[in-house]
Amino acid sequence: MSSESTPVAESLGIVQEHTYTFGPPGVPITLENGRAFGPIDVRYETYGNLNAERTNAVLILHAFTGDAHAAGFHTAESKHPGWWNDMVGPGKPFDTNKYFVICSNVLGGCRGTTGPGSTDPETGKPYGLSFPVITIRDMVNVQKRLVDHLGIQRLLAVAGGSMGGMQALEWSVAYPEMVASSIVLASTARLTAQGIAFNAVGRNAIMSDPHFQSGNYYSDQLPAQGLSIARMVGHITYLSDESMGMKFGRKLQERAAYGFDFADQFQVESYLEYQGDKFVDRFDANSYIYLSKAMDYYDLGERYGGLDFAAARITAKVLVISFTSDWLYPPYQAKEIVFALMKAEKDVSYTELNSPYGHDSFLLETKRQGRLISSFLGSVYGNC
Amino acid sequence: MSSESTPVAESLGIVQEHTYTFGPPGVPITLENGRAFGPIDVRYETYGNLNAERTNAVLILHAFTGDAHAAGFHTAESKHPGWWNDMVGPGKPFDTNKYFVICSNVLGGCRGTTGPGSTDPETGKPYGLSFPVITIRDMVNVQKRLVDHLGIQRLLAVAGGSMGGMQALEWSVAYPEMVASSIVLASTARLTAQGIAFNAVGRNAIMSDPHFQSGNYYSDQLPAQGLSIARMVGHITYLSDESMGMKFGRKLQERAAYGFDFADQFQVESYLEYQGDKFVDRFDANSYIYLSKAMDYYDLGERYGGLDFAAARITAKVLVISFTSDWLYPPYQAKEIVFALMKAEKDVSYTELNSPYGHDSFLLETKRQGRLISSFLGSVYGNC
Repeated sequence: MSSESTPVAESLGIVQEHTYTFGPPGVPITLENGRAFGPIDVRYETYGNLNAERTNAVLILHAFTGDAHAAGFHTAESKHPGWWNDMVGPGKPFDTNKYFVICSNVLGGCRGTTGPGSTDPETGKPYGLSFPVITIRDMVNVQKRLVDHLGIQRLLAVAGGSMGGMQALEWSVAYPEMVASSIVLASTARLTAQGIAFNAVGRNAIMSDPHFQSGNYYSDQLPAQGLSIARMVGHITYLSDESMGMKFGRKLQERAAYGFDFADQFQVESYLEYQGDKFVDRFDANSYIYLSKAMDYYDLGERYGGLDFAAARITAKVLVISFTSDWLYPPYQAKEIVFALMKAEKDVSYTELNSPYGHDSFLLETKRQGRLISSFLGSVYGNC
Repeated sequence: MSSESTPVAESLGIVQEHTYTFGPPGVPITLENGRAFGPIDVRYETYGNLNAERTNAVLILHAFTGDAHAAGFHTAESKHPGWWNDMVGPGKPFDTNKYFVICSNVLGGCRGTTGPGSTDPETGKPYGLSFPVITIRDMVNVQKRLVDHLGIQRLLAVAGGSMGGMQALEWSVAYPEMVASSIVLASTARLTAQGIAFNAVGRNAIMSDPHFQSGNYYSDQLPAQGLSIARMVGHITYLSDESMGMKFGRKLQERAAYGFDFADQFQVESYLEYQGDKFVDRFDANSYIYLSKAMDYYDLGERYGGLDFAAARITAKVLVISFTSDWLYPPYQAKEIVFALMKAEKDVSYTELNSPYGHDSFLLETKRQGRLISSFLGSVYGNC
């Protein structure tokens, strides 16, 4: 068996993409900024089977630059499985032999769901910056329409890391009757000033690119340099000092010793530039702006008069996991959520995993995180 | 007495700038990359008086974007004193009633000392990227020429924070016979991979600016957007999550509540953009590239076969101070220097100050840091 076919065999194999489109015609969605908006395409994938009682559905919520393709492969030739392939599949923590797993691309994204790069039916051109400012709540409201469409009245679990964790929290507070359990990884009830600052730098880099042209670049050159710089900044914040030290240290690219000229590059520089350039091929600069702004705005307690009041609305069992080296969504922020839930006498479990991989730990520490999630999900499902 | 005149009265008052120029004609300097280079202008300031024995000279070494103007005011009208005015002056930690304080702008800088924005005498045009790649050792070698010129054979102390600390360490290892004591603040023997990564992002932002024009922008529009983004990234790394949280939190600019549109700005965003724009007026983009590269290259132990061997060369008494919330030059890196000195049985004092102000602490925590320095300097001077 070749090494390339191995992961396919161990995964879901080939998975299908689906698109659900809703209103208008039909009821459009009212966004948090008050605007009625639609039609909306929702790109989604499902894995496993919905049981007869419709009680085994798990909604997976992706992070900033993720998409609906959480697991499996799109083609037999593909070498790149979905972004959470280690976590989702037969016998894996989100076990598709037991659970019906759904993952959709968020509103405002650029991977199949309506976003700023989609065609505005009123103009026949891409929305660009005429796309409405959207929020985490708006993403959740769109997901709710998808879940309704799939005929599911109550989700066994909502689960996600980072921006996905924000959505899991928002689901639990906005639609408590629909959420039996909530899994919140490497996330926060609201971003720190430092987190907002890094997002602002990314947006500035994109908007300063002369090809940005106020967001109307779709038929022209892309603001590739700006988006690449935004990604480089982002990438540093997803790693940690420790993981970068282990992976790159001060090793030079190609040369063994310093030549003290500009031809020298440290490996970490080349890596970041590569990550930045690669990102431009798969992500839309306007989506970067809209989604990062949605994260900045996110404040779980805002509409309820504070985090304690928001937490009091939750009826789901909650599992919160943070990672010691995550400085973008630091453990103290996870604890704020946990303490609010404890004050409200909710059913909450919390683990801070010791990991060197920074914010990306929720994508990398799949074994230890997986055991916690598998056992948590099993206990919720057993009680359904 | 008006509040504006108060700091003048408490400071050195009006101070003068000087420029020392050396070779060719005369001996040029040989740079670490092997190139003979000159002539070099060195902009410097001095405060206090050199004693008859010439034993009270303290060389202050500035950080990345600092300059020779460490203390006092350039004009009676000026509202902005030198960058370390709280630390340098009569009765202050670097007490100009006792010590003769020297501060010069570094080689490669843009504040009076020869750098990429200076005129290349061979072409009559600014050097731009034809300026040689320079190192921390090169900066120190230029400073040594200045110290020789001032008729000082042995410095009572070399002292600096951040890139200034790198220079203080380099002085102590390169010219041990000339350094009675070395004060190293918020610094490192070599930058982390994360630190290199942030510098790489800044350089990329500058070089991606279409006005950069391979560094030949001096007679045209400046690469202001790129330099501003570099500064925004840098600024975040100089602060801390905690200090940004205290200073800005999630407060909005001008509005009280979210409008969920792009007109909303968090205060931290406006602040960063302001810092970025302001920086463009006082700093040259090419200097940003050269000096950040010098920091990346810096590795105190490199030429001696390791940090332990470099530390063994030092004869100065050393004071090392780090700050708990400094994540750019983290305390564990200061400890690496201290441990190497202890292994070599050197005279080293170390304090980790508990401060929320991140890397900028060495500019802000002047009282507690000042007491340590004042007492350390006094003990060295008493033994001279």
